[in-house]
Amino acid sequence: MTLYQNLADVIGARIEQGLYLPGDRLPSVRALSVEHGVSLSTVQQAYRHLEDQGLATPRPKSGYFVPAARQAPALPNVIRNAQRPVEVSQWDQVLEQIGGEPSEKLIQLGRGRPDISSPTLKPLLRSLSRLGRRQDLNTLTYGNIYGDIGLREQISRLMLDSGCQIPATEIVVTTGCHEALSAAIRALCEPGDIVAVDSPSFHGVMQALKGFGMKALELPSDPLTGISLEALELALEQWPIKAIQLTPTCNSPLGYIMPEANKRALLTLAQRYDVAIIEDDVYGELAYRYPRPRTIKSFDEDGRVLLCSSFSKTLAPGMRVGWIAPGRYLDRVLHMKYMGTGATAQLPQLALAEFISGGHYEPHLRRMRAQYQRSRDVMIEWIARYFPAGVKVSQPQGSFMIWVEMPEGFDSHRLNRTLASQGIQIATGSIFSAAGKYRNCLRMNYASKPSAPIEQAVRAVGEAVAAQMAES
Amino acid sequence: MTLYQNLADVIGARIEQGLYLPGDRLPSVRALSVEHGVSLSTVQQAYRHLEDQGLATPRPKSGYFVPAARQAPALPNVIRNAQRPVEVSQWDQVLEQIGGEPSEKLIQLGRGRPDISSPTLKPLLRSLSRLGRRQDLNTLTYGNIYGDIGLREQISRLMLDSGCQIPATEIVVTTGCHEALSAAIRALCEPGDIVAVDSPSFHGVMQALKGFGMKALELPSDPLTGISLEALELALEQWPIKAIQLTPTCNSPLGYIMPEANKRALLTLAQRYDVAIIEDDVYGELAYRYPRPRTIKSFDEDGRVLLCSSFSKTLAPGMRVGWIAPGRYLDRVLHMKYMGTGATAQLPQLALAEFISGGHYEPHLRRMRAQYQRSRDVMIEWIARYFPAGVKVSQPQGSFMIWVEMPEGFDSHRLNRTLASQGIQIATGSIFSAAGKYRNCLRMNYASKPSAPIEQAVRAVGEAVAAQMAES
Repeated sequence: MTLYQNLADVIGARIEQGLYLPGDRLPSVRALSVEHGVSLSTVQQAYRHLEDQGLATPRPKSGYFVPAARQAPALPNVIRNAQRPVEVSQWDQVLEQIGGEPSEKLIQLGRGRPDISSPTLKPLLRSLSRLGRRQDLNTLTYGNIYGDIGLREQISRLMLDSGCQIPATEIVVTTGCHEALSAAIRALCEPGDIVAVDSPSFHGVMQALKGFGMKALELPSDPLTGISLEALELALEQWPIKAIQLTPTCNSPLGYIMPEANKRALLTLAQRYDVAIIEDDVYGELAYRYPRPRTIKSFDEDGRVLLCSSFSKTLAPGMRVGWIAPGRYLDRVLHMKYMGTGATAQLPQLALAEFISGGHYEPHLRRMRAQYQRSRDVMIEWIARYFPAGVKVSQPQGSFMIWVEMPEGFDSHRLNRTLASQGIQIATGSIFSAAGKYRNCLRMNYASKPSAPIEQAVRAVGEAVAAQMAES
Repeated sequence: MTLYQNLADVIGARIEQGLYLPGDRLPSVRALSVEHGVSLSTVQQAYRHLEDQGLATPRPKSGYFVPAARQAPALPNVIRNAQRPVEVSQWDQVLEQIGGEPSEKLIQLGRGRPDISSPTLKPLLRSLSRLGRRQDLNTLTYGNIYGDIGLREQISRLMLDSGCQIPATEIVVTTGCHEALSAAIRALCEPGDIVAVDSPSFHGVMQALKGFGMKALELPSDPLTGISLEALELALEQWPIKAIQLTPTCNSPLGYIMPEANKRALLTLAQRYDVAIIEDDVYGELAYRYPRPRTIKSFDEDGRVLLCSSFSKTLAPGMRVGWIAPGRYLDRVLHMKYMGTGATAQLPQLALAEFISGGHYEPHLRRMRAQYQRSRDVMIEWIARYFPAGVKVSQPQGSFMIWVEMPEGFDSHRLNRTLASQGIQIATGSIFSAAGKYRNCLRMNYASKPSAPIEQAVRAVGEAVAAQMAES
């Protein structure tokens, strides 16, 4: 990292921590130059960088200020009535999202990709490269079906941060969180069974339910507190629900963190009706607040919670390494994992174990959490600036996804086709619903550091939204 | 490779090619020293090496000879009556096989691991290592759900060797052949459906049928020509069979290659009864004869054959890269693949594409085919020498697996427990049957170059078999 970036990070962190409040004057260029022992031009560069990130505003002849807090846009209105269990559709639309080649040209605001450009990932690449040269059993042949024991020990240690004490022997490494969720669903349910899901929610789970012939019962979610417990209780009374699947911490697409009391209450409900919980925690370590929120699993006493996670959002999706702590369902989950893919690839597991035990994971997480939080503020600012009045926006408390709701009747599929000609893609809302709801919504990714091309893209999305809204 | 190894390989190849027949005198040490311009001691080392491999026998004061051909042991007697479709069991026994850590200490004769020590793998490791350092979208993020297009083009080209003209766009990369088979089964069948399988056969498929709630109808296989077409036709008449799943080329565990006429006849049957064929070709490129045998897929005209394969047996299982050419079922298979694991890891795909396009795959295959063929002969020799009279042995025409049948009533599970104390493991026969048949059989791996420790292990297995047979 260059000197000016370093300095910009320091000042940015102070703003985040509330040392300078909206409207406050920031230290002068000269003062910072003396404090940090750097040149005046380095400080100026740092301020320009902060300006690009939306964290500082210059006023002629007065220096730099923290931008005044704008009125936050209204929250999405996604609580909707519960409905009957449905068969899942939308595969064509999901395929449209994920069928393309990775490309530097396309501005891909639609996918759940983290920023992979951070220098804090370098030790992982060094491990991958070094281990990749080794011609031995550990890297080249079938590993243990449970996963590498060294990595499982590191995962067991990491899970302490979310309040879980799970021995390494009760963790199974999987091919990404995707396989963990898929194995959990198959371990618990038969075709025709009903699974209650938070809504909107991850399209991978929706498609797995579809493919395995299960029915999804979508439960409405509050954009700040998550799944409606009232709706869940009603559903548990009415339907023979086999499992509850949800993403309670830094939910995608809505970004909320379910309050701890709600997590406990949900577990109590699950116990009362004797159903299992499949908890997706893939974004949990990217909560902006520290220490990270507890998982539902951390309150689980009788092994009914199957916690699924991965390194795909915190480190790099291309590793395809996730895990599941399946509680009392360990044997069945292991069987499903074996049936699906056999053992997980060894090389990325060994590299990850080395990266974490070498102490590189925590600094990386700290950095990404701060970056994503700053990017969120800039993204909200941009949406407020470039989208037409009346759109509603989520307030993510973690991860790097934002949800925008347009008026009823808006068609985000049509929007995506319009944007395609400009090399921009957003995620259409309906793929996050089993029944194809939320067609008037979209999800955007703000993982990358704010930059002029991304601002341009968000502006283009906003203008296309406005144009489409004006037509109708 | 050292000089003497090189020379041993040359002489070994001549023996394989039939230049010297069983009982023939091999060239004198002096003659070879002159012919190859190497020292007498190098030739002597080469002969000792050939002796270790069972390819040369010294006679005092007469020099080296090709060992006299022993009477080949009798073939296994595995053709058994067809039976009713059954639910699959044996998961505990499979887990016993695959649940351990990779270890240099255990002499693991049970698993389907190739030899990964060949120098011809080095370019693959170099690519892995070099690409592993790259911090970019291609290696670290989600790839295309179909797989990397560069790799799919290479696979399309490789498939020409088996008589298939399949464009890259009709190939889906998977997390090993395991995922290909699992996705194929789920794409074709619902729970309760009947799948006809060759028997004995791959335990991964058996377990997938179990886990997805399907029934397996085991069809008897001839140890030289494979699945019984008469039994298949009878089964197709009697039962509503959804798919036929088989490994016709270098079958594991039996090692046969189904004759081309039988492959065509099987396809005709499948057309007549309108069922799909799931063809596992994972060992197909390790047929000892050249050019390699054609696949059933190569005769397929209406897209009913789903060809599944991988680089796990030809290169390295730890890569977890396989593929499927699903014919008319492309869309459904892709959906199943997405539901199971999402996109396949990028890094190993890119390294494999580089390895193949760099021209390193063919030389590697040639070397491994020759090595495995020689190892097979040594293994058959060892079994004839160390196992009690009366055991029956397969005659593998490819791959690196051999099947040994003991008399009815023999218990290979008990055998494995006896061997465990000596750090040796074989695969018990019953995991290759849906109904737990073949408990009196075992499978052994001969991928590694013959060596004194492996000979010792085979001898120990033979002695334990003899001891157990003597008891009863």
